[in-house]
Amino acid sequence: QKTEEINSPSKHYLESWNEGISKSTIQEFVKKTTTVGSPDFVPEKDRIAVFDNDGCLWSEKPFYFQLAYAIDFVKKEAPNHPEWENSPALKSAMEGDINGILAKGEHGIIEVVMASHTGMTAEEFSQNVKDWLATAKHPETGMAYNQMIYQPMVELLSYLRANGYKTFIVSGGGIDFLRVWAEEAYGIPPYQVVGSSIKAKYEEVDGKKAIVKTPELNFIDDKEGKPVGIHQHIGMRPIIAAGNSDGDYQMLEYTTQGSGPRLGILIHHTDSEREFAYDSLSHIGNLKKGLIDGPGLGWVIVDMAKDWSQVYPK
Amino acid sequence: QKTEEINSPSKHYLESWNEGISKSTIQEFVKKTTTVGSPDFVPEKDRIAVFDNDGCLWSEKPFYFQLAYAIDFVKKEAPNHPEWENSPALKSAMEGDINGILAKGEHGIIEVVMASHTGMTAEEFSQNVKDWLATAKHPETGMAYNQMIYQPMVELLSYLRANGYKTFIVSGGGIDFLRVWAEEAYGIPPYQVVGSSIKAKYEEVDGKKAIVKTPELNFIDDKEGKPVGIHQHIGMRPIIAAGNSDGDYQMLEYTTQGSGPRLGILIHHTDSEREFAYDSLSHIGNLKKGLIDGPGLGWVIVDMAKDWSQVYPK
Ligand SMILES: [Ca+2]
Ligand SMILES: [Ca+2]
Repeated sequence: QKTEEINSPSKHYLESWNEGISKSTIQEFVKKTTTVGSPDFVPEKDRIAVFDNDGCLWSEKPFYFQLAYAIDFVKKEAPNHPEWENSPALKSAMEGDINGILAKGEHGIIEVVMASHTGMTAEEFSQNVKDWLATAKHPETGMAYNQMIYQPMVELLSYLRANGYKTFIVSGGGIDFLRVWAEEAYGIPPYQVVGSSIKAKYEEVDGKKAIVKTPELNFIDDKEGKPVGIHQHIGMRPIIAAGNSDGDYQMLEYTTQGSGPRLGILIHHTDSEREFAYDSLSHIGNLKKGLIDGPGLGWVIVDMAKDWSQVYPK
Repeated sequence: QKTEEINSPSKHYLESWNEGISKSTIQEFVKKTTTVGSPDFVPEKDRIAVFDNDGCLWSEKPFYFQLAYAIDFVKKEAPNHPEWENSPALKSAMEGDINGILAKGEHGIIEVVMASHTGMTAEEFSQNVKDWLATAKHPETGMAYNQMIYQPMVELLSYLRANGYKTFIVSGGGIDFLRVWAEEAYGIPPYQVVGSSIKAKYEEVDGKKAIVKTPELNFIDDKEGKPVGIHQHIGMRPIIAAGNSDGDYQMLEYTTQGSGPRLGILIHHTDSEREFAYDSLSHIGNLKKGLIDGPGLGWVIVDMAKDWSQVYPK
């Protein structure tokens, strides 16, 4: 029943994409993989498209929005946790001192994440994230964080779904954090989100059984973890993969090394006026190897400043 | 666009279900959760239904079919693995001596599963399972294993999907084993299968990057593991859960303790003529606590002999 949609003009799906090689490559790929009789036709059941989130579907500067959530949570809950005063990383979080947290390295970030993401039920965590999204504002743009999604990528997701692709998020960020708002923002339901996770247990809370989030890492969905996460959650090698940093390199490699037509997409942050410009020198969203190897591997390198007529939704 | 389907007579979806309390309870539940304006209406995005597999969607006697696969694989590959002679469990497997394997307890089964499920790429494993399903026959019925699926449950899955429910498998069996054939058998795609898993890594094999299955347990999707597996993979508390053993107790409990309308279903194996009759005394598919507590909790107890006019597809 998708035939009509497939053969209909697709340009209204990619309104915020300027004409150019990025847009036309994506359109030609979708056309050839969905046209019955094309040598590159892909049956609908195999049409899997995976998207990184931070820096690919929404912004990630000045630092990951999930970390902003974690810091705000620690600030808010600090009066109930005098013991947090004993941790330098948590003390930095209470003071909103991001550099103080980062100075403790990965361990500092994990400590702040554990304090803000565990010791509560999955339902409580979701509610906390919802409440935060309803009020928190980005320090530079003043926008709600879930308004800082990329309009062209939202259109790309819709365009792919209209052509029979299933769209998944495969993020280094936390799976439960993403699931709270991904459906509203991107049309991607909770069960099509793959991400990093902490362990959980099933136990009684206030007389009712619930999932409780526990302070132990379960899975890191980054670099070579992304193909593994895709395997464990999706169970198929994707046809299309999009990312923006070298943390996505293995996901694009795994995707595009599959037989038959495959498409890799890297979002290059070139737009210092409408968003943020960064690549090989940035700690967050570092993109170096992908820019060097990508063009030779046939990956589409999206130039945000040039390829997108609009960044955030109007 | 589901309105027509919702309001159409549903009886042709459940052809192999005899009239009775099991069928009518299921139909009434689906009707009230999908009728706009009903106080029990559930929005389509929340309509999640989870199904155990062994003994709930297909047979599991005289022992789990996945174990039959593992034994056949060990027999076939034994000439290439002289070292297997040193393991009593693998030696039993080579001789097709299931009791010899079970005598080693859980450890014996794990050894046979690891020998047959790891040290190969995910693609190789899938192909091996496909090849086996195409030729292997059940020792008692002489049927192909993937023909020993329950026709009434296949109809129930279709009926739920026609009413906007997303159907998932949540099995104690291996996630990768199930994914090979679940789509053809049940219409459930790989990314809607949750199960037990072993770890995997991303590495180069014959010059190409692949997922390699490694001999380390990752997750046991049984008992209290089922709600955790549902949380990690689906991220939502289901509206409907079906199982057949006490390994499903927590999954049904987690589902039916959610607020709003919820449905728990237990398949009771009462049919020694057309299938197998067993419950509280069986090692495989043990069902005791569920039979005691289930009726008081409002769970539907399906009596296979009485409620199903047909067991396997014609
Ligand atoms: Ca990223
Ligand atoms: Ca079972």
